Amino acid sequence: MKNRIRNKSLRDKIISADEAAAIIKSGMTIGCSGFTPSGYPKAVPLALVEKAQGEDFNINILTGASVGSELDGALAEAGLINRRYPYQSDKNLRSSINSGDVKYSDIHLSHFPQNIRYGHYGDIDLAIVEAIAITEEGWIVPSSSVGAAPTFLKEAEKIIVELNLKQTLDLEGVHDIYQLADPPEREAISLVQADQRIGSPYIKIDPKKIEGIVITEIEDEISFAAYQDDISNKIASHIIDFLEAEQQAGKLPKELLPLQSGVGAVANAVLSGLCNSNFENIKFYSEVIQDAVLELIDCGKIDIASGTSITLSESGKKQFKENIDLYKDKIILRPQEISNNPEIIRRLGSIAINTAIEADIYGNVNSTHIMGSRMMNGIGGSGDFARNAYLSIFVTSSVAKGGKISSIVPMVSHVDHTEHDVDIIVTEQGLADLRGLSPQERAVEIITKAVSPLYKDKLLDYFERAKNRGGHTPVKLNEALSWHQRYIDTGTMK
Amino acid sequence: MKNRIRNKSLRDKIISADEAAAIIKSGMTIGCSGFTPSGYPKAVPLALVEKAQGEDFNINILTGASVGSELDGALAEAGLINRRYPYQSDKNLRSSINSGDVKYSDIHLSHFPQNIRYGHYGDIDLAIVEAIAITEEGWIVPSSSVGAAPTFLKEAEKIIVELNLKQTLDLEGVHDIYQLADPPEREAISLVQADQRIGSPYIKIDPKKIEGIVITEIEDEISFAAYQDDISNKIASHIIDFLEAEQQAGKLPKELLPLQSGVGAVANAVLSGLCNSNFENIKFYSEVIQDAVLELIDCGKIDIASGTSITLSESGKKQFKENIDLYKDKIILRPQEISNNPEIIRRLGSIAINTAIEADIYGNVNSTHIMGSRMMNGIGGSGDFARNAYLSIFVTSSVAKGGKISSIVPMVSHVDHTEHDVDIIVTEQGLADLRGLSPQERAVEIITKAVSPLYKDKLLDYFERAKNRGGHTPVKLNEALSWHQRYIDTGTMK
Ligand SMILES: CC(C)(COP(=O)(O)OP(=O)(O)OC[C@H]1O[C@@H](n2cnc3c(N)ncnc32)[C@H](O)[C@@H]1OP(=O)(O)O)[C@@H](O)C(=O)NCCC(=O)NCCS
Ligand SMILES: CC(C)(COP(=O)(O)OP(=O)(O)OC[C@H]1O[C@@H](n2cnc3c(N)ncnc32)[C@H](O)[C@@H]1OP(=O)(O)O)[C@@H](O)C(=O)NCCC(=O)NCCS
Repeated sequence: MKNRIRNKSLRDKIISADEAAAIIKSGMTIGCSGFTPSGYPKAVPLALVEKAQGEDFNINILTGASVGSELDGALAEAGLINRRYPYQSDKNLRSSINSGDVKYSDIHLSHFPQNIRYGHYGDIDLAIVEAIAITEEGWIVPSSSVGAAPTFLKEAEKIIVELNLKQTLDLEGVHDIYQLADPPEREAISLVQADQRIGSPYIKIDPKKIEGIVITEIEDEISFAAYQDDISNKIASHIIDFLEAEQQAGKLPKELLPLQSGVGAVANAVLSGLCNSNFENIKFYSEVIQDAVLELIDCGKIDIASGTSITLSESGKKQFKENIDLYKDKIILRPQEISNNPEIIRRLGSIAINTAIEADIYGNVNSTHIMGSRMMNGIGGSGDFARNAYLSIFVTSSVAKGGKISSIVPMVSHVDHTEHDVDIIVTEQGLADLRGLSPQERAVEIITKAVSPLYKDKLLDYFERAKNRGGHTPVKLNEALSWHQRYIDTGTMK
Repeated sequence: MKNRIRNKSLRDKIISADEAAAIIKSGMTIGCSGFTPSGYPKAVPLALVEKAQGEDFNINILTGASVGSELDGALAEAGLINRRYPYQSDKNLRSSINSGDVKYSDIHLSHFPQNIRYGHYGDIDLAIVEAIAITEEGWIVPSSSVGAAPTFLKEAEKIIVELNLKQTLDLEGVHDIYQLADPPEREAISLVQADQRIGSPYIKIDPKKIEGIVITEIEDEISFAAYQDDISNKIASHIIDFLEAEQQAGKLPKELLPLQSGVGAVANAVLSGLCNSNFENIKFYSEVIQDAVLELIDCGKIDIASGTSITLSESGKKQFKENIDLYKDKIILRPQEISNNPEIIRRLGSIAINTAIEADIYGNVNSTHIMGSRMMNGIGGSGDFARNAYLSIFVTSSVAKGGKISSIVPMVSHVDHTEHDVDIIVTEQGLADLRGLSPQERAVEIITKAVSPLYKDKLLDYFERAKNRGGHTPVKLNEALSWHQRYIDTGTMK
């Protein structure tokens, strides 16, 4: 324990998970570490469920982004969540959100920490943060993610630390914690290269706020290595062909520009594909460091991987542990306010690759809602990157539900990324390059390049008839959302 | 002329507007200075219309933002425009855009210059830029706006200067020209306070590119001082009450945070209203410096007004000329890439006030399209500010067309600013504060606070029935756009 709690007097603060859960009162607003199923508190939430289940008890849960089921899933199932910000991807929580039981608001991940400090969401009563160690000074060494933990620790009245012995101490030194002052005192962020360190490896806190330290050995939920299917491979190869052509045209350097990619199959396929590309000394400046990033480090293509969390599969974790020294040199974990910061993303000129649920013929993208109403996950960091990138690329399979749904529609049923923030749309069918096109030209480009043959004629027919109505962006108001309604009524958009 | 063209050899380059127009060939892409009817070329476009009207001739016109009718109006009417970026507000051009004759794409104003340099729109053949003088070195002293002129001058193969003798030489020194390097070489922008100067008063160019200098005395089109009616005064007082309450709650300093506001009646009413508020030493960091900004300087409330153009009414111009020394000290004109830069806006923590055409019950905003299809003006800089502000406020009258249209609808017919980027919606009815609310809570807040009594029950009824469908953001797909369709069919949304 000496190694893990280096400040002697803090060792007296060790308490059980049950004792920690007893600190939590109904009505509290609680900020938890965690970003994807990585680095989130597990023992205390599970103890809380034991304690509070069935009672008239609820709390507001704030995190960095999505977290594992021990936190979101268990609390939602027990009906203990009142409000939840800024992102989630949990099955149980999703149902509670869609039934209206949980008041959820999905918020740009880079905005979220500053909004907390601005007081947009009221006071933070408690921070629960996973750590691998506490320093002599009483500062926190985060575990596999940073997320919004620095802000929660700063703003919360009290702190509970989950000290996780299963998280390797080797992670120490990977983090780079830089905290922003708020306007009117904010300075320029000095980061101008993806591999730069601008902060401290520790989260500096006032150790007097620590109410308890819970020792735990519950591991992060396993993230399944995304399955690379035929569709994701096709999308990836369209993207790589495009980037190579841009490079040949002198528009991109041999090192590309810093890459951002969402998680999942397509992201994995693109990253793997880059191992066989012409590009070299690539920089990865993104949110989540997933298996394929390790692969890119292994094949020598990547110089630096900067993110706010490491989220690996079972085999990825093994690989990471065995080669920790190699990887440690190339990985930096930052607060999400820095990984996703518009100032940095715009300055670096990111190439952003994010996933759409659906897109429309004019280039608007829906990343969050199924058939307009049902929340899937949330906008997450996609807007931070898409809005500020050098190139904003969105990917989606051209159809969903075995062809019953076209992922390109006359009008998206919800807009998360407007036509102004989408440069390129890619499906397995092809790549539509929208830069500089008028809405009507975009429609032709998208329909010819990206739509499934199942829906191409139908969409062209809609577009031609809409044009008869006239206007810059022709829309048939009584038909624009009829494809979705037809799917709801008949089970297919056909 | 010695004072105006200080480099002797450049005086040989003086040509007539007709000679300049002869340089313009069909198919060219031309970048023009100008931002609002301020500082745009006038003589050469008018000569071009004379020359090319009726011929099979067209060009692509790029500007900073909207410009006066001598450029957009005359060229559009003569059918000489093929493509047009990134913003406009001209009656003739609007028709040509909506008829499909002009291929228009409205683009975030801060993105536009870098997109040009990135090559997203192809090569720039010619820059036509209004100046008040050319320095000894052959550099340009811009006139009443900066806009995207620095980028056009840098990227264009050839340059025509319109030297406007009616623009006062006193403007020299007002400009602060800082030009960004592009990724991967971009540095942090050192501006951390609204009143900071970080560049040069001149646009440095390669004088060898100057093909001709046209001497002109055509004045900028007069901008009419926006009429402050009862509605705009009510909206303004809701906003000022809100800001005062935020300040009393300790959330805003006595100096506020830097203000941005669109142009027009509400903006003028808010700015005038601030003269009678508690706030002091206000900083204005925006795009356009309009009459009411002079008023705020006069009443001693404003420390600095930073923008990219000065756009005044007849009387405003007189006032400006007569007190130039006073105003010069407090005004800075920057390239739009700096005035609208997300890095700066986020750092400064702007309070952004922009106008919506319509908003929906979940907080999405349409700034551009009438009934989904017809382009009004374009997104302009509203997204640059709304997306990065400390507080993003949208204003609109609760009804349009004498009550036949509700400006709050079940679903906006076009989305320019998503629910994620809208904190506050204000109509003359009241102010809806959406921060931290779930979509369903937002609907209640908006309907109770901001909707006209004419449409309140109708909108509540829609919302209640949508809720029966369920989901996080309940939408009745077959009804969401029916209010707009009803207006088209019957002339009213009632
Ligand atoms: C958009 C997003 C949901 C896609 O996730 P994914 O796992 O790649 O996509 P899937 O193909 O598994 O689709 C997810 C679900 O949406 C459904 N779906 C996909 N396209 C659809 C469409 N056009 N219409 C309706 N449903 C659709 C799928 O059927 C699946 O539903 P199911 O779970 O009931 O089977 C996910 O990327 C996301 O949440 N993005 C937003 C946040 C973000 O981009 N973060 C990264 C920033 S760094
Ligand atoms: C939104 C915008 C068009 C409003 O302009 P405005 O002059 O304040 O608004 P008006 O009330 O005069 O409305 C303009 C037109 O839209 C119509 N309109 C207004 N609300 C409407 C609605 N809800 N539905 C349909 N039409 C509507 C008006 O009737 C008027 O039409 P008309 O010219 O045929 O009479 C204008 O602010 C704009 O272009 N904004 C986008 C760019 C921007 O915000 N720039 C500032 C960034 S710094």
